[in-house]
Amino acid sequence: MTRTRIAIVNPNTTDSMTASVVAAARPAARPGTDLLGITARFGVASIESHTDEVWGALAVLQEIERLEDSATPPDAYVIACFGDTGLPGAREAASGPVVGMTEAALMTAALLAHRFSIITMPRRTIEQSDRVVRTLGLGHRCTVRAVDEPVAEVHDGSAHLLGLFVTEALRAIADDGAEAIVLGCAGLADLVAPLQQRVGVPVIEGVSAAVALADGLLAQNLTTSRSQTWARSTSPRPAQAGEHR
Amino acid sequence: MTRTRIAIVNPNTTDSMTASVVAAARPAARPGTDLLGITARFGVASIESHTDEVWGALAVLQEIERLEDSATPPDAYVIACFGDTGLPGAREAASGPVVGMTEAALMTAALLAHRFSIITMPRRTIEQSDRVVRTLGLGHRCTVRAVDEPVAEVHDGSAHLLGLFVTEALRAIADDGAEAIVLGCAGLADLVAPLQQRVGVPVIEGVSAAVALADGLLAQNLTTSRSQTWARSTSPRPAQAGEHR
Amino acid sequence: MTRTRIAIVNPNTTDSMTASVVAAARPAARPGTDLLGITARFGVASIESHTDEVWGALAVLQEIERLEDSATPPDAYVIACFGDTGLPGAREAASGPVVGMTEAALMTAALLAHRFSIITMPRRTIEQSDRVVRTLGLGHRCTVRAVDEPVAEVHDGSAHLLGLFVTEALRAIADDGAEAIVLGCAGLADLVAPLQQRVGVPVIEGVSAAVALADGLLAQNLTTSRSQTWARSTSPRPAQAGEHR
Amino acid sequence: MTRTRIAIVNPNTTDSMTASVVAAARPAARPGTDLLGITARFGVASIESHTDEVWGALAVLQEIERLEDSATPPDAYVIACFGDTGLPGAREAASGPVVGMTEAALMTAALLAHRFSIITMPRRTIEQSDRVVRTLGLGHRCTVRAVDEPVAEVHDGSAHLLGLFVTEALRAIADDGAEAIVLGCAGLADLVAPLQQRVGVPVIEGVSAAVALADGLLAQNLTTSRSQTWARSTSPRPAQAGEHR
Amino acid sequence: MTRTRIAIVNPNTTDSMTASVVAAARPAARPGTDLLGITARFGVASIESHTDEVWGALAVLQEIERLEDSATPPDAYVIACFGDTGLPGAREAASGPVVGMTEAALMTAALLAHRFSIITMPRRTIEQSDRVVRTLGLGHRCTVRAVDEPVAEVHDGSAHLLGLFVTEALRAIADDGAEAIVLGCAGLADLVAPLQQRVGVPVIEGVSAAVALADGLLAQNLTTSRSQTWARSTSPRPAQAGEHR
Amino acid sequence: MTRTRIAIVNPNTTDSMTASVVAAARPAARPGTDLLGITARFGVASIESHTDEVWGALAVLQEIERLEDSATPPDAYVIACFGDTGLPGAREAASGPVVGMTEAALMTAALLAHRFSIITMPRRTIEQSDRVVRTLGLGHRCTVRAVDEPVAEVHDGSAHLLGLFVTEALRAIADDGAEAIVLGCAGLADLVAPLQQRVGVPVIEGVSAAVALADGLLAQNLTTSRSQTWARSTSPRPAQAGEHR
Repeated sequence: MTRTRIAIVNPNTTDSMTASVVAAARPAARPGTDLLGITARFGVASIESHTDEVWGALAVLQEIERLEDSATPPDAYVIACFGDTGLPGAREAASGPVVGMTEAALMTAALLAHRFSIITMPRRTIEQSDRVVRTLGLGHRCTVRAVDEPVAEVHDGSAHLLGLFVTEALRAIADDGAEAIVLGCAGLADLVAPLQQRVGVPVIEGVSAAVALADGLLAQNLTTSRSQTWARSTSPRPAQAGEHR
Repeated sequence: MTRTRIAIVNPNTTDSMTASVVAAARPAARPGTDLLGITARFGVASIESHTDEVWGALAVLQEIERLEDSATPPDAYVIACFGDTGLPGAREAASGPVVGMTEAALMTAALLAHRFSIITMPRRTIEQSDRVVRTLGLGHRCTVRAVDEPVAEVHDGSAHLLGLFVTEALRAIADDGAEAIVLGCAGLADLVAPLQQRVGVPVIEGVSAAVALADGLLAQNLTTSRSQTWARSTSPRPAQAGEHR
Repeated sequence: MTRTRIAIVNPNTTDSMTASVVAAARPAARPGTDLLGITARFGVASIESHTDEVWGALAVLQEIERLEDSATPPDAYVIACFGDTGLPGAREAASGPVVGMTEAALMTAALLAHRFSIITMPRRTIEQSDRVVRTLGLGHRCTVRAVDEPVAEVHDGSAHLLGLFVTEALRAIADDGAEAIVLGCAGLADLVAPLQQRVGVPVIEGVSAAVALADGLLAQNLTTSRSQTWARSTSPRPAQAGEHR
Repeated sequence: MTRTRIAIVNPNTTDSMTASVVAAARPAARPGTDLLGITARFGVASIESHTDEVWGALAVLQEIERLEDSATPPDAYVIACFGDTGLPGAREAASGPVVGMTEAALMTAALLAHRFSIITMPRRTIEQSDRVVRTLGLGHRCTVRAVDEPVAEVHDGSAHLLGLFVTEALRAIADDGAEAIVLGCAGLADLVAPLQQRVGVPVIEGVSAAVALADGLLAQNLTTSRSQTWARSTSPRPAQAGEHR
Repeated sequence: MTRTRIAIVNPNTTDSMTASVVAAARPAARPGTDLLGITARFGVASIESHTDEVWGALAVLQEIERLEDSATPPDAYVIACFGDTGLPGAREAASGPVVGMTEAALMTAALLAHRFSIITMPRRTIEQSDRVVRTLGLGHRCTVRAVDEPVAEVHDGSAHLLGLFVTEALRAIADDGAEAIVLGCAGLADLVAPLQQRVGVPVIEGVSAAVALADGLLAQNLTTSRSQTWARSTSPRPAQAGEHR
Repeated sequence: MTRTRIAIVNPNTTDSMTASVVAAARPAARPGTDLLGITARFGVASIESHTDEVWGALAVLQEIERLEDSATPPDAYVIACFGDTGLPGAREAASGPVVGMTEAALMTAALLAHRFSIITMPRRTIEQSDRVVRTLGLGHRCTVRAVDEPVAEVHDGSAHLLGLFVTEALRAIADDGAEAIVLGCAGLADLVAPLQQRVGVPVIEGVSAAVALADGLLAQNLTTSRSQTWARSTSPRPAQAGEHR
């Protein structure tokens, strides 16, 4: 019996983050599904700006193209960066379905809570969350808050972030009526259990949520619609990205 | 190893519909997950009005209360009626997560297509679809259309409905820019493959979609938030529903 | 000359609440209109959850069916529970128009104030208010706040609630720019005058508002559209609600 | 016993229109309520542009100021022009509540039908309807359509307009799912019965709807909030409107 | 070479305000463009209510009609009052394009910042800002705040207002995530530089923004669409505004 | 006197398109402003998919970084591709303001017409237009339509496209109530005059609109807010874009 393979694509270049993200998402995968961690081969160490997203989107696209050209392309893909960097291009490039961790987390939250909040980091990335909230139309149920720490803090271990997330989550519960919390950054899986325990509402980790959704799409034999928006791109692939100082 | 059990609750009293819905959803379930079909013990043979939904919601609630009182309550529930009849009360009554087929279908469509359409039946139930679209906020991406046939037609086998759905789906694609179609009624799983083949875009069956989502929530160890909106109801259960002509 | 009769249907089983609600709404009725208080014959003593609403919706439906079957059905109905429990089914069952106290209060507030706030109780019922706000589309003008007391407090006399409502109303005025307050629970009519006096903006009581609207619809000879959404339900009425523990 | 008086203010200068509007609205008034027709003393014969509305708004304001300065100001006001010309200023000037025929018609429609359509005239006034729809937030339930005839046609008797309204209403029902029709112009009361009979859904005439709402506000002892938005204007009244060509 | 002329129409009667507004906007105009200050000949000294707007709208309309009747009508118009008093009628009356200072400020802010806030004055005019935000659809990115001072304070020199605006702007930045501030009143140009320096985000003055937009429309040879909404009004101009107390 | 310089960045590699776009936009620029055409050095010949946008966004970013590193960076930038490819990253990289042709066209249309339509090409790029409409919040006033021709057709001269655009524009006017048309592709400036002449409503070309807006921002001494969303990116620039098959 062949096993299902879902590639988790990390748009930044930090291998250790990919490894920890994949490990954390494994329980969400179906028996019979293997998770394949893919790290961007170029770009930035963490994605904290729209500039970083430009590089991340290209890295995601090229990794997917490379895998699709390989003998054994994965069955589905997950984008492991809050903001779902590069998602639309990825959908065009992949044969199987592609799920972003942000859209997955928001859908999951909407199944568990009437109102909920994203706590992202750093503060300057609030727009990236707003963008996904707007794409899905969940602005009447979801607020976006931030802990103003660089993503690098996550790489160093997320334990010391717990206090900051507890404080902000309690504000979301009191002021926004949040009944669930979405962790607004990849690599924060270690926070799920202690944060949930401290604030008393469900805490959602997007990569796990996305793996579960991708697995479900495969079980339903569904993939991206090829009608219009995310049809295969027909332009020839560029030969090179030009000079890069 | 204990197996996971998801109860598929059919809010109408038609046993044969429950059976066919469960059979159709089985491929969407994880290995290790069993599906348990539950048919309303009272109420109406098919749900085609808000009046029917009143009965359906009570039947859903009582079936879930009965299962929760049993020695082996299921791990999660799926509501198998378009419009997600009785969903909020079900969330309060169940220990595990509850997923409606409509919300599940819409989330699934949003992962596969920029714009999409529900084709429901009969026409008078468009509001029930609108209600879920509004709750999720997807009105900018989803239109609601109808085939004006009674649900009873589904019980008699859905084959003769194919032509009607093809016609309406082609209108949705041409006029609304739909890139995927959501079947707006339980029991239409037999239409998925031929309709998809005829109109060339993904066709989504909500019970399968909901089973996949429920399985995913369980894998993430998530259940309904008990903070506020869907906290356990604290009123004593009514002793009887009064006289019923 | 025949008199007009409007039935005020209380979806909970507390007779004393029905009596006080009817008494408070009487000044809002036209000369020539009689108010008829109807209390649910089964269900719960107060509606504070979605589970309670399932019972309340059935009680509303059956009371209306009973009255419609009677020799002298009322001319119109008002649903006297915040959240408008059972409203859509009630519209299908009644010959005359049906008005919910929540929709009526919101429409009334929108005629008097640019921005306004609902103060509901207890906190867990905020979603029921949000639902009506969303159905009407008033989210850009209306916020929902709560006093976290059980509805039972209302039955015991609402006087001791005044302080809590004043505090929350002043927050709504300062923080949300509210220019009117909607009382988010039936049975609070005694609060209208003192609250208005203390906070200096109009205070709206939904049952009175709904009686006025229903009277107005009758004067215009208007009733629920029978086209599609709220057409008469055609399913046979269920013979019984099954076993009830 | 003193009687209640509601002034129906027609922002255009056509006395015959005021008379017919008042006559048509009389059945909607409470026993004990008198309707007082007020015609603009200057301005335009019919309001078909934003320019016309500038004059209409001033005429409405000055008529209300004049009545408020009189010995016996009316208890409430209705603005009898689709688009609710001059409504915000009127609210500041009047002691009693002010209701616009457009907002009244839309609220009334929302009590009777899930989706509905305005049919206004002429086509260029669609924005005036859109403006009220947007203010109330009803865009998800209401479409705006037009019969492209000048309002002058109404003055000549509306009978020959019937065919045009039937055609457009049938389009609204078929294409927009309308379950009720709002007549988008004052003076069309004669169309209500035949149009309703021809298209089979409720037809709503806004002046009647507004009279009913105003009567209801008075019965609840409610008037415009004096907090912020519609507080009394404190500027000295201009002494004259300057030279006019 | 003929020069371009843009008339800046101040809907209130305070000449000194017109002069300072024109002076402040001059740097925003193209070389080759002259700014022409126009003060209302009647009406109120400052516009702080909807009543004031009724007079302001008529003054705007009549000034534009007068200029259009002149030998050398200006090429474009700017409405120099927050809330864009009289804008729709002005568009119908003018041959060239008409730009409101509020819509211009909001568009400009949206080019510079993801989220931003209007700080208007006095508090009672928040609705006038909300109206423009709603017309443009920017409610998801823009909040409206107020400094509760009369506009007369502006006439006396705006320097003493700085502290109040700094306080409110810092609240907007901290609580609403504002990344730019829109000054919600004409005549506050002196605040731009010091406020920007104190709060560290761009501060937008609407009259300058509107002059720039109007100049740009002229360079593109664009003017108001004459199809439907803002087509020329066809009613005869009223001969006089009637008796005025 | 130093002259102002605005760089028009074409995210595709077709030099001839850049040249024609710059030439067409020149009349919209202020006297004293020079336009500088910049063509992507790598990527695709025309941007017709989200994949193409990934390359276009990187090309835009790198061209802006190169110009900013030069001795004489331009004062402002315009993105000359419908969908505003790469706009957020460009805002972070540029010292001066950056304006997208799509946002500029929509703002310009909103100043001229109540309702309007984008006609984009090819059909699969409708989502890219929807994305900008959603970001601005103009969905209540703007529809998106398409002519299903490849962008390559534009390169070959746009004359033969006229008939297709006339047909679709007439549909927008009749069915959507459009009062202005936005050309949904760069390089179509030759269509403006004949299309406007054939359909009788203003036709808006986005690059010209964007040049006018950028010039206006410079005249107001405004640039992108450096608070949060579009603050300078702090990640080190990647050394290379990796291997590119």
